[in-house]
Amino acid sequence: MAVFARMTKGQVRFYSAPLDMVIPASKKKYIPTSGTYPKGFSVSGTHVGVKASNTKFPDLALIASDTPCSAAAVFTTNKFQAAPVQVSKEVLEKRQGQGIQSVVINSGCANAVTGRGGYEDAVSMGATVDKCYGLNEPSTLVMSTGVIGQRLPIDKILSKIPTAHSNLSSTHNAWLTTARAICTTDTFPKLISQSFTLPSSPGRTYSLAGMTKGAGMIHPNMATLLGVLCTDAPIVPSALKSLLSHAVSRSFNSISVDGDTSTNDTVALLANGAAGGAPINSTSSDDYAAMQEILTSFAQSLSQLVVRDGEGATKFVTVRVQNSPDYESARTIASTIARSPLVKTALYGRDANWGRILCAIGYAQGVAPGTVIPERTSVSFKPVDGSPILKLLVNGEPETVDETRASTILQDEDLEIVVDLGGGEKGDKGLGGEEAVYWFCDFSHEYVTINGDYRT
Amino acid sequence: MAVFARMTKGQVRFYSAPLDMVIPASKKKYIPTSGTYPKGFSVSGTHVGVKASNTKFPDLALIASDTPCSAAAVFTTNKFQAAPVQVSKEVLEKRQGQGIQSVVINSGCANAVTGRGGYEDAVSMGATVDKCYGLNEPSTLVMSTGVIGQRLPIDKILSKIPTAHSNLSSTHNAWLTTARAICTTDTFPKLISQSFTLPSSPGRTYSLAGMTKGAGMIHPNMATLLGVLCTDAPIVPSALKSLLSHAVSRSFNSISVDGDTSTNDTVALLANGAAGGAPINSTSSDDYAAMQEILTSFAQSLSQLVVRDGEGATKFVTVRVQNSPDYESARTIASTIARSPLVKTALYGRDANWGRILCAIGYAQGVAPGTVIPERTSVSFKPVDGSPILKLLVNGEPETVDETRASTILQDEDLEIVVDLGGGEKGDKGLGGEEAVYWFCDFSHEYVTINGDYRT
Repeated sequence: MAVFARMTKGQVRFYSAPLDMVIPASKKKYIPTSGTYPKGFSVSGTHVGVKASNTKFPDLALIASDTPCSAAAVFTTNKFQAAPVQVSKEVLEKRQGQGIQSVVINSGCANAVTGRGGYEDAVSMGATVDKCYGLNEPSTLVMSTGVIGQRLPIDKILSKIPTAHSNLSSTHNAWLTTARAICTTDTFPKLISQSFTLPSSPGRTYSLAGMTKGAGMIHPNMATLLGVLCTDAPIVPSALKSLLSHAVSRSFNSISVDGDTSTNDTVALLANGAAGGAPINSTSSDDYAAMQEILTSFAQSLSQLVVRDGEGATKFVTVRVQNSPDYESARTIASTIARSPLVKTALYGRDANWGRILCAIGYAQGVAPGTVIPERTSVSFKPVDGSPILKLLVNGEPETVDETRASTILQDEDLEIVVDLGGGEKGDKGLGGEEAVYWFCDFSHEYVTINGDYRT
Repeated sequence: MAVFARMTKGQVRFYSAPLDMVIPASKKKYIPTSGTYPKGFSVSGTHVGVKASNTKFPDLALIASDTPCSAAAVFTTNKFQAAPVQVSKEVLEKRQGQGIQSVVINSGCANAVTGRGGYEDAVSMGATVDKCYGLNEPSTLVMSTGVIGQRLPIDKILSKIPTAHSNLSSTHNAWLTTARAICTTDTFPKLISQSFTLPSSPGRTYSLAGMTKGAGMIHPNMATLLGVLCTDAPIVPSALKSLLSHAVSRSFNSISVDGDTSTNDTVALLANGAAGGAPINSTSSDDYAAMQEILTSFAQSLSQLVVRDGEGATKFVTVRVQNSPDYESARTIASTIARSPLVKTALYGRDANWGRILCAIGYAQGVAPGTVIPERTSVSFKPVDGSPILKLLVNGEPETVDETRASTILQDEDLEIVVDLGGGEKGDKGLGGEEAVYWFCDFSHEYVTINGDYRT
């Protein structure tokens, strides 16, 4: 066992962030070499040394707009909410989603379960940023990620905030350094950007940029998901809130690495309107509809990077539950499949084990009655190479599976599982066309090693 | 990776059932060398060869009473219910919980997702047993465990039922062979028995025996939990049903190996009254209350053996959630902790990671509002050696943990985690004393290896 443990320890280096921050060759393709960043935003990644062992890598991120923004955020539903979550909520509430100018983030310490002192630390992080702008009203959102149950080295952080402010820049490299500053054991920084237009002014170019960090941990902290999205489109707070909520439910809240929800999870969206044009101020406008589609798809791409970097992950799996009588039930079923340890280990083993998928469909809790009718349920694998789907179960009857083909499909890093509910009990009336999608990764030996590792 | 895969393949032999059915030395202590079995019951374990590779081990179990019994059963809530589950439900319903004489069980094939043919196979298994007794009405419960999506080799099974019937015996060895016959990848047979008395006739000795099988699988089937309990106490069907339901919710439904719920899970209780005395026919009698306590505690001991034999398990963990305003919320929190992959891997790594426990408490879904108040929540480890508890979090404030002591406590195979909710929002009124207990095991490399193994 000692030999075994040593071997798997060796394996970890390959899957979790190496100390020298060298990005694994297989992950380099996920890192952009250029970007289209929103006007009026500048960013910086600065070294503080929140963890004493970090002597040179940036661990303080500042994302700032030249002008006040509309802002919205989606927070963890965990009952133990970290101090920065409480503070950011209060700031957004107080400012009613307007007048937000920056987001400040530290990695290395989550400032969670730290009591009154921790709360004050989070407040002072925001206030110190505000001071750099000469702002008296709280205008900064605060996020932290890392170890739980420990206080921030707050003096070190505060003393470096002016440096972070003077480091602000709008270059691609600055965005990449900032994306890296929010990482913990992520093996690569997660940053994407794109330009887009809106129906009301087709000649005007808007941009959207986002960074996120994934489920990674160094003992004794927890997986923490953070995300910041910035756009130069003009959007009023109420519309922004609704846009973000729709997008997050179909992206960051539709991914699963291990099914645990941390105390710090926060995704924020800032819109400064720097690109001009008519503001999106109604949820029924064409611009709103277009923005919803753009933002949701963008958030999906960004959140998928978290799954790509899931701890110990060897596979990236899309599960699509279609022809459901309602969206929520479809999503619950997709989520249950994505969280099943039996499904996740079978995928790691490249095993076409549809029985476990079926089992998860069958025990999903909170699914509306009449959604799952065994005789109407079909399961198939959709290969990513565009070859025909492989049917595993059709209307509740097992197919004779071509195991060689199944095995070939499962060799790919990517896989799509399609569950067709046939409309449930409404299927005979031709009803039930709702669809939900979830993205998840497998459970590997490395996952266990990373998360079972001794605190040394 | 190839070397690594080979090594872990080698490891598996150590943790899952060896082909020669040799019981691992560490598990021998769980196998009784004698028993106190209920009067009027006889049992047998017979070789059929449901799986062609099984050339000699018993895989057909018959548990029979000399006289008709009251019977009750708790079945899986999975929507894809295996054929034997459907058949046993129908038999119990048709007979209204009376007149049941036997339980017939095969291992090696779950007879799940097998359509109309599979249903008929399950019916004929029961009918063939009934014929041995010359019974015309369906009087046999049917269970199956093993591979999913494959038809039973039904002719082989039916042809051996008369042999199983003639093999019936009431010796300890017969009970042990029968308990072994229902195993799949269990590393040891799970059988316990005890004698007891009831308040109404303190001089009369009753007995209770039970066998179960655990979460184990050989591809491509799923974890399947089966249990059969027999007593010679006289209990009417309505009381029996209520007794079993109470006991199962606090035992078989309060354990977690991996959180997956199979299509075949069934726990049945038969009472033949052979030991005489006044029947338990009211849920308000003293005998009922005594029987409830005996049965629940017995079912807990039996179900704990499943956790002891969890796939790849290296730890046996009790999680006790106390001072909750209501039982159901306490149970949901206990269940969420027991299913958290982060908690399970930390325990495997012997890591006193209370942050993950807290995180799971905080994201437990379906907990009544006001149950979890961060400032009233405490978490501690209770060592099994009787030494003082180790406080990790007290009223929401982290303790300075003696890591050496924590590490010592975590070296033990057994651990108890105590979560004290302090009465939730009712704590200030001195209310909220409900308690729920869950038993679970860790997630190890071996779990991943066993469940990710290639179908070869």
